[in-house]
Amino acid sequence: MIILMKTGSTQQDIDAVVSLLKERGLGANLSTGSQATVIGVLGDKTKLEGANLELMEGVEKCVPIMHSYKLASREMTPEGRTVNVGGVVIGGKKLVMMAGPCAVESEEQVREAALGVKEAGAQFLRGGAYKPRTSPYAFQGLEDEGYRILRRVGDETGLKVISEIVSHDEIDVACKYCDMLQIGARNMQNFRLLREVGRSGKPVLLKRGVASTIEEWLDAAEYIMSEGNYNVVLCERGVRTFETATRNTLDVSAVPVVRERSCLPILIDPSHAAGKAAYVAPLALAGVAAGADGLIVEVHPNPRTARSDAAQQLTVPAYKELVEKVSAVAAAVGREL
Amino acid sequence: MIILMKTGSTQQDIDAVVSLLKERGLGANLSTGSQATVIGVLGDKTKLEGANLELMEGVEKCVPIMHSYKLASREMTPEGRTVNVGGVVIGGKKLVMMAGPCAVESEEQVREAALGVKEAGAQFLRGGAYKPRTSPYAFQGLEDEGYRILRRVGDETGLKVISEIVSHDEIDVACKYCDMLQIGARNMQNFRLLREVGRSGKPVLLKRGVASTIEEWLDAAEYIMSEGNYNVVLCERGVRTFETATRNTLDVSAVPVVRERSCLPILIDPSHAAGKAAYVAPLALAGVAAGADGLIVEVHPNPRTARSDAAQQLTVPAYKELVEKVSAVAAAVGREL
Amino acid sequence: MIILMKTGSTQQDIDAVVSLLKERGLGANLSTGSQATVIGVLGDKTKLEGANLELMEGVEKCVPIMHSYKLASREMTPEGRTVNVGGVVIGGKKLVMMAGPCAVESEEQVREAALGVKEAGAQFLRGGAYKPRTSPYAFQGLEDEGYRILRRVGDETGLKVISEIVSHDEIDVACKYCDMLQIGARNMQNFRLLREVGRSGKPVLLKRGVASTIEEWLDAAEYIMSEGNYNVVLCERGVRTFETATRNTLDVSAVPVVRERSCLPILIDPSHAAGKAAYVAPLALAGVAAGADGLIVEVHPNPRTARSDAAQQLTVPAYKELVEKVSAVAAAVGREL
Amino acid sequence: MIILMKTGSTQQDIDAVVSLLKERGLGANLSTGSQATVIGVLGDKTKLEGANLELMEGVEKCVPIMHSYKLASREMTPEGRTVNVGGVVIGGKKLVMMAGPCAVESEEQVREAALGVKEAGAQFLRGGAYKPRTSPYAFQGLEDEGYRILRRVGDETGLKVISEIVSHDEIDVACKYCDMLQIGARNMQNFRLLREVGRSGKPVLLKRGVASTIEEWLDAAEYIMSEGNYNVVLCERGVRTFETATRNTLDVSAVPVVRERSCLPILIDPSHAAGKAAYVAPLALAGVAAGADGLIVEVHPNPRTARSDAAQQLTVPAYKELVEKVSAVAAAVGREL
Repeated sequence: MIILMKTGSTQQDIDAVVSLLKERGLGANLSTGSQATVIGVLGDKTKLEGANLELMEGVEKCVPIMHSYKLASREMTPEGRTVNVGGVVIGGKKLVMMAGPCAVESEEQVREAALGVKEAGAQFLRGGAYKPRTSPYAFQGLEDEGYRILRRVGDETGLKVISEIVSHDEIDVACKYCDMLQIGARNMQNFRLLREVGRSGKPVLLKRGVASTIEEWLDAAEYIMSEGNYNVVLCERGVRTFETATRNTLDVSAVPVVRERSCLPILIDPSHAAGKAAYVAPLALAGVAAGADGLIVEVHPNPRTARSDAAQQLTVPAYKELVEKVSAVAAAVGREL
Repeated sequence: MIILMKTGSTQQDIDAVVSLLKERGLGANLSTGSQATVIGVLGDKTKLEGANLELMEGVEKCVPIMHSYKLASREMTPEGRTVNVGGVVIGGKKLVMMAGPCAVESEEQVREAALGVKEAGAQFLRGGAYKPRTSPYAFQGLEDEGYRILRRVGDETGLKVISEIVSHDEIDVACKYCDMLQIGARNMQNFRLLREVGRSGKPVLLKRGVASTIEEWLDAAEYIMSEGNYNVVLCERGVRTFETATRNTLDVSAVPVVRERSCLPILIDPSHAAGKAAYVAPLALAGVAAGADGLIVEVHPNPRTARSDAAQQLTVPAYKELVEKVSAVAAAVGREL
Repeated sequence: MIILMKTGSTQQDIDAVVSLLKERGLGANLSTGSQATVIGVLGDKTKLEGANLELMEGVEKCVPIMHSYKLASREMTPEGRTVNVGGVVIGGKKLVMMAGPCAVESEEQVREAALGVKEAGAQFLRGGAYKPRTSPYAFQGLEDEGYRILRRVGDETGLKVISEIVSHDEIDVACKYCDMLQIGARNMQNFRLLREVGRSGKPVLLKRGVASTIEEWLDAAEYIMSEGNYNVVLCERGVRTFETATRNTLDVSAVPVVRERSCLPILIDPSHAAGKAAYVAPLALAGVAAGADGLIVEVHPNPRTARSDAAQQLTVPAYKELVEKVSAVAAAVGREL
Repeated sequence: MIILMKTGSTQQDIDAVVSLLKERGLGANLSTGSQATVIGVLGDKTKLEGANLELMEGVEKCVPIMHSYKLASREMTPEGRTVNVGGVVIGGKKLVMMAGPCAVESEEQVREAALGVKEAGAQFLRGGAYKPRTSPYAFQGLEDEGYRILRRVGDETGLKVISEIVSHDEIDVACKYCDMLQIGARNMQNFRLLREVGRSGKPVLLKRGVASTIEEWLDAAEYIMSEGNYNVVLCERGVRTFETATRNTLDVSAVPVVRERSCLPILIDPSHAAGKAAYVAPLALAGVAAGADGLIVEVHPNPRTARSDAAQQLTVPAYKELVEKVSAVAAAVGREL
């Protein structure tokens, strides 16, 4: 932590800050410039909880110099982490492909999607059982029956199953039927849910909130990891901006930034970023070229009958075509499918 | 709903859309312009769920023309709503003042704040028992004991009690001790929580998410109302923008927009928008001048010892000074304290 | 400037930075913490131009601690500045009211607006002669003839004249006919134009860019002031966010932030922020309550015939009503009309 | 244009709108739904300039259905356009690589950069002669001498020369020395400048404004094209968001959106989006994978001595490495260097 004093702060102001630091067992290092004094705090800044230095006389502002997350940081695990989901490794040389319908609508629909994406080369089947919807009058998902359908079809096809969990009440059932739990963008700061999935030990795909900074996202990952569950994979799915041509704005820069700051793998969800099927492939390829560890893509056997997010779901043939392109781009950046 | 056909769509494309509408029992009204055809849909658009017109050949886009919320709309309740919390009416001529510390830290701290804000003229005591914090290592609140402290002090001072609920698990205890429940910005789209507070029947203060549009906010209110609980009060507390001089950017325009589109009362939270005590009073006055129905302000007996949000909490004397100014501005716009 | 070294930087890295600072005649003050070293730079940081410390081995980042603007800062002129435009003082106790049509369309239209706003109590007549329009096919203004019309009507009615200048080519004619020049949001970083209006010596109203931070805005003001023209008034007119209910989002917090950081007066333009006549009055009152030094409002004798921005222009009677309300709110916050 | 009437609008309101349309020589097509009436306007909407339908009694809002740009649209030139700059074709199968220092600092510096990027495979030399800088106290460029240096080095090395123009005053000199003119993000809506480069006939690289929608960007291109200059190439360089980990947020989605809506080629500038050299390569590759027609990258022989944007400039060896990766990704998506 660095404390910047105001132009015009007095020696008394500076002494008061230094005294407080000493009372708390911290060191102080003063830099007195021509216009302002800067105080470097030496020691464990958690000792400053409640000290509220920014309210002391003469203090202009306090600048933190360390991340608040530790387990999720690259510093602590410089070699990076991989997450192993029943034998499928996320974060290695091989990209991981997750695909399936936005919402579980029926066993037939899920099976048709699953067979298609399996054939295309996906390792994971995705599908929403509990659907968070903006309006209370929209289709809310098949709930627990959705999880069961995914499990049955996953077992049939040999695909791992990932599905969103929207409340900690469903954690036992979700853990029973899924191989990996997804925390959606709206719940990225549902801290109770983060702690519970942390306690569950299940691998977690943590989507970025639409208005969350990368630092806040890594803090959210830290919530899960601080409960002892290190099997966390991040997923960039677009942030909210002023642009309306796409549903959200895919922040592809998040890939190198996360790579630099965090030890966790990162996937790209081009479907929610795009909001339109025609844009999914370009965004998917961009994510892979930028270094993402895989993709999660919405695929529906017949998007025209989908009960949610119809405009952004790919058909099975379109997904197959995408996977071929992904394979070529992956090779070009030293990865493989 | 209006369906805009692409330049270059064929008669066959148009016929296919019209046929689909008819199959669903809907009417179609065609406008054939020089460059594009527009199809107006006549009838109840919920019949179109799953139809996914935007994926049909030749369709450029679909433009909804009605809000998805009904109970929260101004159209349905043109005269507006008031919410009565144990005799204190929110949404009438008299402004409602809520104040208290960011977090409940101790009974003494809450009592001192409560006596101060009561004397200044507040009707509600606020205080966080469960605190949603960005980092897992930050102070998370006194939890249930916090609710009990608020109740005891509320009873002593004659202030109504409002506190945030972060998970539906605490709904019974929160309802037991509080007069009004607060849904924080991070939980504005925690739909499970919205439904549960809806079922509880307790008055709810629904804060706007930092990246939520006003339409999404009203949809969130609709979740609560659709469970039969019409006692919803909205609260604008700043949205996330590129500007870093303030913690968030107070969207004071939300006051007239909500007034026009919704029947629900609206408060302003200048503390979280500002993030800095010095900016709280100007924002509070701006909110009242724009027509807000009251204010919720963070007040701490000694901000320098606060365990969270220290920089933005007012002292009791600063709050008293603010209330005097609010009183003058309220009178200027035909309201009163 | 503070230089934060990386966790894991070597003594050699630190020595290299310190040597560079010394070579440039600057002092260095080291704080060695448990996890990172921080180097405070002592002396005039302009000596570091081209040093690019952030690229040196072991450097994590450089944090500036001083504003880049000086003349526009509050530190340099703690008492604040007023701008005198032909006897009308902007920035004093008395609020300044500027009003008139979006675009100059004809002498009759301007005269009718001017007589109305004069009677309502405005001191300035505004009107666009050169109109920056998003599409090349939209009405672009009457150009120089617009300036002349404003001057004639200004002289007739005793109103000061303010109009936008979009290119330095028109600076002589604009200076001849106007009492104050307006730099629009799109030109806030047209540095050539800023310098030229700086050289002209004419009072300038500098609107904030829709995506400009307050710091960038004050840097833009510094461009004008660095040419010797201190007659700069700022104008907040809404920033671009994800919200679509209003044309822009009025950042009313800019008023206290500017007051704290800068010595310059600040006005509010509620018309461009709102984009809709019904929201203009609430935003105007919010701005005044927050402490703005005045308002610039679009008023048209007959908005239904306006050639631009029709939806947001007030009628003359609506403006009169607004001025009465402004008068009451101004009094409530210790100002006057 | 579609006119949506309010719930509760009267027959008289509707008749008034229809009459006005007829007076202007336009047709009207009514869709009367259960809750609202929609009026489709038939004919050339420019006839509606000044009609301000949104202010008529009973009108809720007007929804435009056509773009305001025509020449820049994909509809008008479905096959797309290429721009030929002295034999180098932009928009074909072959990607175009532009590279060079942020600012022209000296002939030696430019020559060293030019030789390096030429060897790496670039076809264009970039460099800023006139530099728009946030602060008036920062290095502003070598101005006309900068253009001359670029020309000399361009001629020596056989590279085409591109440089930014910040004011129409320099248009003659810029046209004399450059093969292509660049309009920077800050000037994207400097309409006077757009018209002048339109009149010049020179090929133009039009960067997107940091807070401009894609529609506004295409309207800006239309300004240039409406003067008869169709040699316009777009360049995405990051938009402003709440995220601070990067200088701007690269909107890679702009590539497929522009491809769909416009006939113009599009390049990616990863340097300004990233703001940090380490992120440049991932963003460059993402852009190419998404389908961009080329890249413009900042390369400096010695970034540590750069007078501006030091942190984001690549060294020559880093650029060579990037070009190799670009070549592989280009091949993977059916393009070539």
